[in-house]
Amino acid sequence: MKPVGPIPAGYDTIAGELAIGGKRVSELVAEAGRTPLFVYSRSHLDARVAELRAAMPRRMGLNYAVKANPHPDVIAYMASLVDGFDIASSGELAMCAAAGIDPRRISFAGPGKRDDELEAAIAAGVTLNCESEGEGARALAIGQKLGTAPRIAVRVNPSFEMKGSGMKMGGGAKQFGVDAERVPELARHLIENGAEWRGLHIFTGSQTLSADAIVEAQGKVLDLAAELTDAIGHGCPKLNMGGGLGIPYFPGDTPVDLGRVGAALHARVADLPASLADTELCIELGRYLVGEAGVYLTRIIDRKVSHGVTYLITDGGLHHQLAASGNFGTVVRRNYPSAIATRYDDNPTESVNIVGCLCTPLDRLADNAAMPEAQVGDLVAVFCAGAYGATASPTAFLGHGPAAEMLV
Amino acid sequence: MKPVGPIPAGYDTIAGELAIGGKRVSELVAEAGRTPLFVYSRSHLDARVAELRAAMPRRMGLNYAVKANPHPDVIAYMASLVDGFDIASSGELAMCAAAGIDPRRISFAGPGKRDDELEAAIAAGVTLNCESEGEGARALAIGQKLGTAPRIAVRVNPSFEMKGSGMKMGGGAKQFGVDAERVPELARHLIENGAEWRGLHIFTGSQTLSADAIVEAQGKVLDLAAELTDAIGHGCPKLNMGGGLGIPYFPGDTPVDLGRVGAALHARVADLPASLADTELCIELGRYLVGEAGVYLTRIIDRKVSHGVTYLITDGGLHHQLAASGNFGTVVRRNYPSAIATRYDDNPTESVNIVGCLCTPLDRLADNAAMPEAQVGDLVAVFCAGAYGATASPTAFLGHGPAAEMLV
Repeated sequence: MKPVGPIPAGYDTIAGELAIGGKRVSELVAEAGRTPLFVYSRSHLDARVAELRAAMPRRMGLNYAVKANPHPDVIAYMASLVDGFDIASSGELAMCAAAGIDPRRISFAGPGKRDDELEAAIAAGVTLNCESEGEGARALAIGQKLGTAPRIAVRVNPSFEMKGSGMKMGGGAKQFGVDAERVPELARHLIENGAEWRGLHIFTGSQTLSADAIVEAQGKVLDLAAELTDAIGHGCPKLNMGGGLGIPYFPGDTPVDLGRVGAALHARVADLPASLADTELCIELGRYLVGEAGVYLTRIIDRKVSHGVTYLITDGGLHHQLAASGNFGTVVRRNYPSAIATRYDDNPTESVNIVGCLCTPLDRLADNAAMPEAQVGDLVAVFCAGAYGATASPTAFLGHGPAAEMLV
Repeated sequence: MKPVGPIPAGYDTIAGELAIGGKRVSELVAEAGRTPLFVYSRSHLDARVAELRAAMPRRMGLNYAVKANPHPDVIAYMASLVDGFDIASSGELAMCAAAGIDPRRISFAGPGKRDDELEAAIAAGVTLNCESEGEGARALAIGQKLGTAPRIAVRVNPSFEMKGSGMKMGGGAKQFGVDAERVPELARHLIENGAEWRGLHIFTGSQTLSADAIVEAQGKVLDLAAELTDAIGHGCPKLNMGGGLGIPYFPGDTPVDLGRVGAALHARVADLPASLADTELCIELGRYLVGEAGVYLTRIIDRKVSHGVTYLITDGGLHHQLAASGNFGTVVRRNYPSAIATRYDDNPTESVNIVGCLCTPLDRLADNAAMPEAQVGDLVAVFCAGAYGATASPTAFLGHGPAAEMLV
């Protein structure tokens, strides 16, 4: 038996069935007209933002990293909840524009911005998080061509990383940002050549569950930002402190102690160095805001036994949930939180392998997991599907096409 | 320095630049109008099929597994080269129909066929490779509803695997096919209840470079097919022996010794057991047919140094080439074959990291690779991009969209 990950808080049942937003999953599937279906829960988004607002200093702005979930309804809903948006491409800029988001609330990071992307962003008034001297020169040239002062912050590659983070974004050679020691010269060059100076972006890692590691990294980010601001000599209008707050996916994972992170930030913000006294501060979160708000629902279309092992074969799979299959940036496959959604209150009575419909042994949703006995037609729920699910999976693989998506 | 994988044979240069189908890559990119671009080479497809036809017994049919590369032009071109097509979804059925392929040349495997997929396939006259007793019952019921005898083969889960295969499709509990000992009963049930009996499908593994392992597995497949056919008692109209022939991706990999595989098949086919005397034989290949025929071209948009490491940042990445990034079914990342396509004849002079444009450290195309000094605007080629590239990657990730594709 292999355990499954912890199911996020805030999900209910109606008549023994998993319910989201006050409706049974079978009703939601009927509304969508098909499976597989991603359901995103407004009440989870609300609750997560409320927790963050309660824990963080009032001065701390909250940005949404669109890449985590760019579904149009999610972007539009987040617009009412957060202060800013971080994008990673001109495609995401277009999605934000479609949701009516003021481009001045948007910043654009990414190590490989094409000229046409820079032009679209500069023309719209989006802040560029400049990732290199070369990109800075291209942005200045495009600003001149357009007759617009490009709004530019510099993304810093810090010499430290966030400990225990799932993806390290600092601490050594990286394709992201500019090594800290070269930042002052680049920033001055941009300011002296007509950029509207927007400050610094320092991203140190992602998917960390340790409050201590987050507190330590955030402290170092503030120290580094103050030091760089002094060296630049033009103040720091805004500091994007990055993200890094993780969510529990796997057995044994526990949520970030947000109270502790918030308390440490309160203390630091109450005692900021003079060079950051007027700086607008924000953190940038993607997965932490939307990850636990999403559930992936897929229908069992076969139940079969091979050499004594029971397989539940669903109409979903890694073409929608690559990370849950264990094939995206993972070394050892572990089970995401999952359940038989239509028998949610039943006790487990058997061990099953839940797999997708693809013709590849990589297509696994839960291995050797304890579940109530499910039949063809039952719905399987895979939790923690709100971030890096629908758009971080190979939807064209084997020709089944994308899943449906719904915000409730 | 980390070596890159072996570049497939059959690529030329013109004026020092990589050429495909008699044109420089910069010309091809100009024709496509943009990068990133997948280029698929007709002459490579021709050559590979010719090698196979020369090596294999004439009696051995050649099927193309559409999932490897379902680009419409590739499917249409393969229709003139191969005998049959294997599909994995009704989406792939529609692609074959669009290419004008006779459904009677098509067989459909996949552990999770939905009822609407079974119906489409049965109505069209496609052969179902039946994966379970449950699927068999559904197929019979749909056949009755349609008034059509469903054409059905049984996919066998053999008790042996192909040794050294990248993905094992046999040898223990699997979600694929029916355990060998239950096949005779299921086959008889299908035949007695109105199915048009189409024989057996036995797939033992994929991506094997060892001729010995392939020969051994093919021998066992023939033995098993004969044994099952005797037990079923209705002959075996067709035997799909699966695929498994791999291509070299990584340093040290060497091509399959096709002569040896062919010679062993000649010997076996000349001495088939009586129960397979009239059986139509075929092998089913995807990656082996198209993998080396594809090149992924992406443009360098930044060149930067971080802590002494040089990064070439391209406009492509794992959203098109997930496997090359090392994030799809791989434990240890190794470098795919790659080159600076626009300086193809130059000697390597530096070590670089070639990365994609995505804002994630997972987005790597070549680590610490020896290359001639490349500048912004140069094109990078990643080889072995013809199979499981464009459609096996998360194209929506970060909003950059799909690459262009072109058959030349």
